[in-house]
Amino acid sequence: MKIIIVGAVAGGASAAARARRLSEDAEIILFERGHDPSFANCGLPYYIGGEIAERQKLLVAPKELLQQRFRLDVRTRTEVLSIDRENKTVTARDLETGLTSTESYDKLILSPGAKPFVPPVPGFDLPGVHTLRDLQDADRLLNSVTGGAKRAVIIGAGFIGLEMAENLVNRGIETTLLELGDQIMPPLDKEITQPILRILREKGVQVRLCDTNESIEKTEKGLRVTFKSGDHQYADFVLLSVGVRAENSLAVDAGLEIGPRGGIKVNKNMQTADPDIYAVGDVVETYEFITKQPTQVPLAGPANRQGRLAAEHIFGRKGLYRGTQGTAIVGLFGKSAAMTGFSEKAARRFDVDYEKIYIHPAHHAGYFPGAQGMTLKLLFSPDDGKILGAQGVGEEGVDKRIDIIAMAIQAGMTVYDLEEVELSYAPQFGSAKDPVNMLGFVAAGVLRKDQPIVHADQLNEASWKDALLLDVRTTAEFESGHIEGAVNIPVDDLRNRINEIPADKKVIAYCKVGMRGYLATRILLQNKRNAYNLSGGYTTWDLMRGDG
Amino acid sequence: MKIIIVGAVAGGASAAARARRLSEDAEIILFERGHDPSFANCGLPYYIGGEIAERQKLLVAPKELLQQRFRLDVRTRTEVLSIDRENKTVTARDLETGLTSTESYDKLILSPGAKPFVPPVPGFDLPGVHTLRDLQDADRLLNSVTGGAKRAVIIGAGFIGLEMAENLVNRGIETTLLELGDQIMPPLDKEITQPILRILREKGVQVRLCDTNESIEKTEKGLRVTFKSGDHQYADFVLLSVGVRAENSLAVDAGLEIGPRGGIKVNKNMQTADPDIYAVGDVVETYEFITKQPTQVPLAGPANRQGRLAAEHIFGRKGLYRGTQGTAIVGLFGKSAAMTGFSEKAARRFDVDYEKIYIHPAHHAGYFPGAQGMTLKLLFSPDDGKILGAQGVGEEGVDKRIDIIAMAIQAGMTVYDLEEVELSYAPQFGSAKDPVNMLGFVAAGVLRKDQPIVHADQLNEASWKDALLLDVRTTAEFESGHIEGAVNIPVDDLRNRINEIPADKKVIAYCKVGMRGYLATRILLQNKRNAYNLSGGYTTWDLMRGDG
Repeated sequence: MKIIIVGAVAGGASAAARARRLSEDAEIILFERGHDPSFANCGLPYYIGGEIAERQKLLVAPKELLQQRFRLDVRTRTEVLSIDRENKTVTARDLETGLTSTESYDKLILSPGAKPFVPPVPGFDLPGVHTLRDLQDADRLLNSVTGGAKRAVIIGAGFIGLEMAENLVNRGIETTLLELGDQIMPPLDKEITQPILRILREKGVQVRLCDTNESIEKTEKGLRVTFKSGDHQYADFVLLSVGVRAENSLAVDAGLEIGPRGGIKVNKNMQTADPDIYAVGDVVETYEFITKQPTQVPLAGPANRQGRLAAEHIFGRKGLYRGTQGTAIVGLFGKSAAMTGFSEKAARRFDVDYEKIYIHPAHHAGYFPGAQGMTLKLLFSPDDGKILGAQGVGEEGVDKRIDIIAMAIQAGMTVYDLEEVELSYAPQFGSAKDPVNMLGFVAAGVLRKDQPIVHADQLNEASWKDALLLDVRTTAEFESGHIEGAVNIPVDDLRNRINEIPADKKVIAYCKVGMRGYLATRILLQNKRNAYNLSGGYTTWDLMRGDG
Repeated sequence: MKIIIVGAVAGGASAAARARRLSEDAEIILFERGHDPSFANCGLPYYIGGEIAERQKLLVAPKELLQQRFRLDVRTRTEVLSIDRENKTVTARDLETGLTSTESYDKLILSPGAKPFVPPVPGFDLPGVHTLRDLQDADRLLNSVTGGAKRAVIIGAGFIGLEMAENLVNRGIETTLLELGDQIMPPLDKEITQPILRILREKGVQVRLCDTNESIEKTEKGLRVTFKSGDHQYADFVLLSVGVRAENSLAVDAGLEIGPRGGIKVNKNMQTADPDIYAVGDVVETYEFITKQPTQVPLAGPANRQGRLAAEHIFGRKGLYRGTQGTAIVGLFGKSAAMTGFSEKAARRFDVDYEKIYIHPAHHAGYFPGAQGMTLKLLFSPDDGKILGAQGVGEEGVDKRIDIIAMAIQAGMTVYDLEEVELSYAPQFGSAKDPVNMLGFVAAGVLRKDQPIVHADQLNEASWKDALLLDVRTTAEFESGHIEGAVNIPVDDLRNRINEIPADKKVIAYCKVGMRGYLATRILLQNKRNAYNLSGGYTTWDLMRGDG
């Protein structure tokens, strides 16, 4: 068995190591266009920021280790130019010598990844305008950062753009973050991104939403970045992080089937249209986990999993790729935002019917010092309660809750299962009713109609405009800020003042986070009022207001 | 509907709040023998240690709140003396006035909890010998601690004993911890407790295993605690934390069915033998989650869940208690140890067939600063790979992995599912192959026979005594400590030196954590050697050696 793997990071490296474990006899050639196989691309921003001080650390599996330990034929700085499917060969060029050679294969695994997208904007080819894909890019950015750069513009507020913003701020660089959309972190729903937007601004990042750049020019004062809005900014360097494009040219030239967003189409064994050619990682179009519809999500975890599965399939194993959940997280200035499964935006895009709820629990028992708040949002099927997705933002413990729900989605669980799960509790780690249980209680309560809810983004709709907004917080809370038009009756007074509540209109109860609002809703319903709880209370309303 | 609830902490308080949400009309009386309803009993050690500075914080739902917000008739310092099942009444005594009264009920919920067990040992009734159950106990201990006490003896190294040890050390008190068994934290398997035992000793706690006390005497030098081993220790106070006993006397007197360990028997609706009487929390014998066999586990999470379910059943809801997983965690001096599902000990006790594996991953990407090691142990069915239990010990991120596996157990998932789950990855939070995935890879590899394994505790068995122990770490690692009798061939040399490996005997490969040992096992197997990997490598072997 002779296996050729194109691309030696994440998916390619995983495939190679797995193939070797399964077969000592296989000949395995790993072609890598870059300098380094298996480097930690998710660590690059932190290397530039100085948090990862040793470059060496980023070489997760150095070439020598792959050669010695896994007996792989690793050919770095070697670009595969073409695939001859009929004769089952590839032609590659050594980028140092310029020499080309041809290698035959029994099985070919394509793992070339994705490259940063560079829009056709004047000046994007100037020195000082960077993208960040590999260690050499990182070295160049590090040189700028440590070489006296004082001002930077980052174009694109996705995960890499944000991580770079944090790291540049930590380096003392004045940073402007430009984003075409009306929110940072496009995969998440906008309101979930607000706390991250706020901390960015608190830390001095100039975040410009709904703006893009028209051109970059070299001037004596540095790079002049001109925005569509008419403003401009001078910068010592610019980072382009507006997304990635699948490196599909080899596959296109070989006539393999390609999806509408450029990803190579594969089956659940990670085989392309040619059964002797597999594709894995950022280059493929794969399957959304719940609906099994095509999707294209560049993430390290799925890339590794796919590489492993491709190698296993070559050796007759039966494992099938289950699809990508899109679990992702970003950490920023001590905060984190994470997601798994569908966001609202994605659910709409995939035409999936959903209900949603919000909670704002503490990350561990409130009576123990250091409890920090978080916001969790859960999407679920209004029919059977099946969990469709979750998002979270906060300080500590967001990753834990999102990962637990990632597991629930993997298992096809419902919100009723979240009520039951028994999680670890000591006051430093959680609560006897963990936030995950609370998500279950609230969502199941909605489905059981214990608690009809309304969302902050519905309040302006015609059918809700005449509703009574009932603030059930304390008078002091009410006075420190409330939703315009709301009437204040603290929940503890509600039973005594029930006659003040009209029976002929909708009543929307709200509190700070939704708990007292829920109790108020129960009291109102049992007193024959047409009551709804504002999901997530004033806190969600405030996030949706989106003042950043 | 008139509901009487006996016991207003955890299960009782949850039942009361849930009942009120479901019915504004119900009359709900909450009897509590102690001073405070719904206090944070899991926080008591940290109140004594000073970490929770305000006593007020421990009153999670003060009496006034329960009265005002939930319109509950809360009667603290009132002990229910008897139940008249025929007439559906209880008789209670006001402990302040001594007056007794009788109340009728439609439904009765028993949530009296469990009391610290006090063995019949001379001197256990002396002043200065404490147990820790409620805020008054905590006040007394706090008085000792802040009143000049310098030396303490804790009897019993369960979770409360350990948490108290940490908090007394933090108060500068010389602490001796006495445990009858040969390990601390009896619910966990011994090797998992070793890192916790080590940190206790590093912090100066005198831990005496396999020892108990014979008597306590009052002397001029303080309380003289005499050990069975013959030694003795002087202490200013003693804490008894040798376990709890269900407060079942009301139920016994009422003729309700009681399990062998004293718990009230209930069905999945939390009903006792009398359908109008429910029991919840530490007082009940409930069901082990996987086997549905009877078990009795005092934990806050299940108590809350059971209280909720009892209230729901009273109002016609159909939810069934699914059984107790036994998910638990303890945090100590920055380390934590946690478990969910079966330990080995419990699996044997329940006669459940299992295989096990160990891994020792970093809690987040190794290339990012601050990665800390942890040990994870997974129990699974050797037939179908169903996950039976997990234990973990380490610094950061143990709670997350145990909670994810708690979810997997709740879902009835297998080790093959752990291979697939897609968890959040950024270098501060995890790895592209999360420790949970690694558990899946290793366990599934064992079941697929990619990797036959042997365990450190089997090495002295007759069938393994003649095996070749092959240390595949580097020479430097080997020389800094290895298993007696092992031969060193670093994995990177193994292919070249394969002829040194006999083909006629078992070969046990091992490395530091099991990864290189796995690759070595693959190389050996494919070279027709009878090879096994030592699960968890030298690190697990070292934990099993159990030097504390």
